[in-house]
Amino acid sequence: MKRTYKILLVALVVIFTGIYITKQNSKEGKHPKYIFYFIGDGFGVTQAELANHYLKITQGDTASLNMYKFPDLGLYETHCTNRYITGSAAAGTALSTGHKTSVNTIGMASDKKTPLKTIAEKLRDNGFKIGIVTSVSVDHATPAAFYAHQPSRQMYYNISLDMSKSEFNYFGGGGFLHPNGDGKINEDDVRANLGLSAGNEVKDKPSSISVAKKRGYKVVKTKSEFNSLKKGDDKVLVFAPRCAGGKSLLYTIDQEEGDLSLPELTQKGIELLDNSTGFFMMVEGGKIDWACHANDALTTIHEVLQFDASIKKAIEFYKKHPDETLIIVCGDHETGGLTLGYAGTHYESYHHILKNQKMSYEMYAKKVALFRKNNTSFSKAMENVEKNFGLGKKGLELTKLEMQNLKEAYRMSMIPRNKRIEDEAFFLKYGYEDPFTTMVVKTLDHKAGISWTTYSHTASPLPARATGVGSRYFRGFFDNTDVPKKIEKAAGLK
Amino acid sequence: MKRTYKILLVALVVIFTGIYITKQNSKEGKHPKYIFYFIGDGFGVTQAELANHYLKITQGDTASLNMYKFPDLGLYETHCTNRYITGSAAAGTALSTGHKTSVNTIGMASDKKTPLKTIAEKLRDNGFKIGIVTSVSVDHATPAAFYAHQPSRQMYYNISLDMSKSEFNYFGGGGFLHPNGDGKINEDDVRANLGLSAGNEVKDKPSSISVAKKRGYKVVKTKSEFNSLKKGDDKVLVFAPRCAGGKSLLYTIDQEEGDLSLPELTQKGIELLDNSTGFFMMVEGGKIDWACHANDALTTIHEVLQFDASIKKAIEFYKKHPDETLIIVCGDHETGGLTLGYAGTHYESYHHILKNQKMSYEMYAKKVALFRKNNTSFSKAMENVEKNFGLGKKGLELTKLEMQNLKEAYRMSMIPRNKRIEDEAFFLKYGYEDPFTTMVVKTLDHKAGISWTTYSHTASPLPARATGVGSRYFRGFFDNTDVPKKIEKAAGLK
Repeated sequence: MKRTYKILLVALVVIFTGIYITKQNSKEGKHPKYIFYFIGDGFGVTQAELANHYLKITQGDTASLNMYKFPDLGLYETHCTNRYITGSAAAGTALSTGHKTSVNTIGMASDKKTPLKTIAEKLRDNGFKIGIVTSVSVDHATPAAFYAHQPSRQMYYNISLDMSKSEFNYFGGGGFLHPNGDGKINEDDVRANLGLSAGNEVKDKPSSISVAKKRGYKVVKTKSEFNSLKKGDDKVLVFAPRCAGGKSLLYTIDQEEGDLSLPELTQKGIELLDNSTGFFMMVEGGKIDWACHANDALTTIHEVLQFDASIKKAIEFYKKHPDETLIIVCGDHETGGLTLGYAGTHYESYHHILKNQKMSYEMYAKKVALFRKNNTSFSKAMENVEKNFGLGKKGLELTKLEMQNLKEAYRMSMIPRNKRIEDEAFFLKYGYEDPFTTMVVKTLDHKAGISWTTYSHTASPLPARATGVGSRYFRGFFDNTDVPKKIEKAAGLK
Repeated sequence: MKRTYKILLVALVVIFTGIYITKQNSKEGKHPKYIFYFIGDGFGVTQAELANHYLKITQGDTASLNMYKFPDLGLYETHCTNRYITGSAAAGTALSTGHKTSVNTIGMASDKKTPLKTIAEKLRDNGFKIGIVTSVSVDHATPAAFYAHQPSRQMYYNISLDMSKSEFNYFGGGGFLHPNGDGKINEDDVRANLGLSAGNEVKDKPSSISVAKKRGYKVVKTKSEFNSLKKGDDKVLVFAPRCAGGKSLLYTIDQEEGDLSLPELTQKGIELLDNSTGFFMMVEGGKIDWACHANDALTTIHEVLQFDASIKKAIEFYKKHPDETLIIVCGDHETGGLTLGYAGTHYESYHHILKNQKMSYEMYAKKVALFRKNNTSFSKAMENVEKNFGLGKKGLELTKLEMQNLKEAYRMSMIPRNKRIEDEAFFLKYGYEDPFTTMVVKTLDHKAGISWTTYSHTASPLPARATGVGSRYFRGFFDNTDVPKKIEKAAGLK
């Protein structure tokens, strides 16, 4: 009997200790093997909410953004070292390295000299496969902040050379902005990157695409090549077969059958990166920002919905690997000062009227350019506006003031840019894009009960939404630099 | 030896079970005895962030809002049953009862008939002492939503009668708006409340203040009475000795030595309510909303800072009772479409220039009324503007456009309200307040890099910030109706 008790005693200690350790581990100890890091550029609280509301209007009350269902959420501030309102380079660097830096700096401290190791590089060095996906150009600030180290985001050639040096496994986006070395260049860095002797001017700059190929990257530029990419293909660089301005994917609202989309790039990333040692994929919804710079609500909504559809791809993967996957959805800064209300509509909202808009401001500005070329009359132009935005049709009648504003904007659009005076009042009304297009889009947004305050960014704190293993780290109120630190913690690095 | 093992065995089982239960309890089982529910009216993400940034500018980089240090945070949507953009009555009802209702309805379902029990009433019935504090009138929508049940927020007399019927222990605010029964009235409800016979017209309506006294409430109207209130005093109704418009406390920026403040009302509530069975106190920062309706940034900032100073009182109490206190900070809706950016200032912020503003828009409008009375010239008025807002002084020179806008606004302000035409353009520029005052404040805000899109509310989701026992319930993304449900859960009701 004495022995029986002894055995029972030992067994009990073992069992309780086991339960304790298991409980600790299940809560604290597990690390994700698959990490998705979604960053919406210009993506604030209101951008998400507007898209979610539009989803309900068009698909019924039970519809919801996928990211709205995530169990954990935090809110964080975004200022950079030298500005309260940050930019994509500094914000991207904060989100990739955990360090504040100055405006326009990519993956470096604010001294513009000290390179900072990114979460992607750290995970790469820990055996993770790495993917970087964006709906804008691959060398744009946000994706660049994960693999490049340059004093200026404008050094596109240097950034594109850094890309292939990263040894990351998968890149996807619109294209490169300056693959042939035109534009702003850091010559010393080019020499160092390419292993050229110091001191001499860099002549005959090799295309960064050819450099990527030399470094073992497969460059994919057609849809059929893209489709035939399969598990096992490594070091892949995908460029969109058809691009909009700035070597970006077309706006979702303007995409046609066969155009490459962000969800497709995300899904392909999952296929290519999936392996037994894990992967990290950063996916940027880059044109939310651009649509917000132009104060175009419906184009913004479609970009957010496409971004959310990419998140759905990650969720589908997560469902297959629930104990090994972490998904985080963030923004780098808010753009446009988007608010879900407008003085003229008081407490009412008419978001459903946005359905009348047929194309993005970018596409419509091309039509306005033709109006200018063809000397189209204002009334003819307004017929076209009715067709493409619904403005003026029954139920969307224009007020005297709205008509005046459109007429004045049209007059401005008919003057070639180099011949018109763009004073303070002009800029406040029209910003950077075509005046008439801007006023058309703004009038529709206002009638819908939506408005904007700027053509630049704002300093609103942003939500981080998280689900999966380690999502508990993304709670409370923190700083944008905390986001990659939390990922590191979740991943159990160091 | 056999006995020794037996004893050891039993001891181990007891210890491990004990550890397990303790661990469970410390995490899941505890309920707060003291619950603070702070509601900022019109208080969104940007209102908090602007105040926090201004605090850093004026008090140094380490300064921060108290609420920014809370460990838990959630974000929630605010729409009501019949509008995407909610109002204070429907939002207050959602936050007090956990049910959506229609615009203007207080503590009732959207049928405007079915009363809904509030969290304050439930906690009262569970032995908690109850306090309701606000910086506006005690019968205003947000406080009313916790003790009244009326089909319209405009039924101020009915609401004030509901107040004394609640048997809550402490009320504090500016005053009652219609204590004598003028204004909109529900006669049946008055009869039922006062126990009068049905059918007859209600004549000689008793003052709701005298009714409160009859029902045992001590009505405090002077600062010395207020100061001498002490622990043990029960059923106390505090009215501010000096009020601003709408029977509210003066704007913080306009308060003078001796004026009653929200932190004082909060602190007094703690003293009076503190007891062994616990208490619940709702504290509303009611004039954040009003300052935002007027698009006045500095007045908003000071209201938020005063609101946060009230939260500090709760935190001081929490520090003494860390295992028994829960503090939640919410908003009912965003007001004004406040954004921390402005088209004209691009990516720059100059929030420090707000320091030049010496008083609220409300106070300044009174000066403008004198200008009108005295036929003051525009240039004389602008001298006054420089003195009180800094506009026009060195470093704050006005652009041609700004000067034009101010001149036109002044012209409008000099026309008596009943004689000027207020068309669409007029409303978009000036909203509901004095045109010149609005333009002055707006010009300063714009120069600071801050802007607004509406004189009404917006539909932006809002943060709930929580600390203390049960704060873990306030995580993730949810609905405004979930907030009181979470409080109930935390409190362990039912």
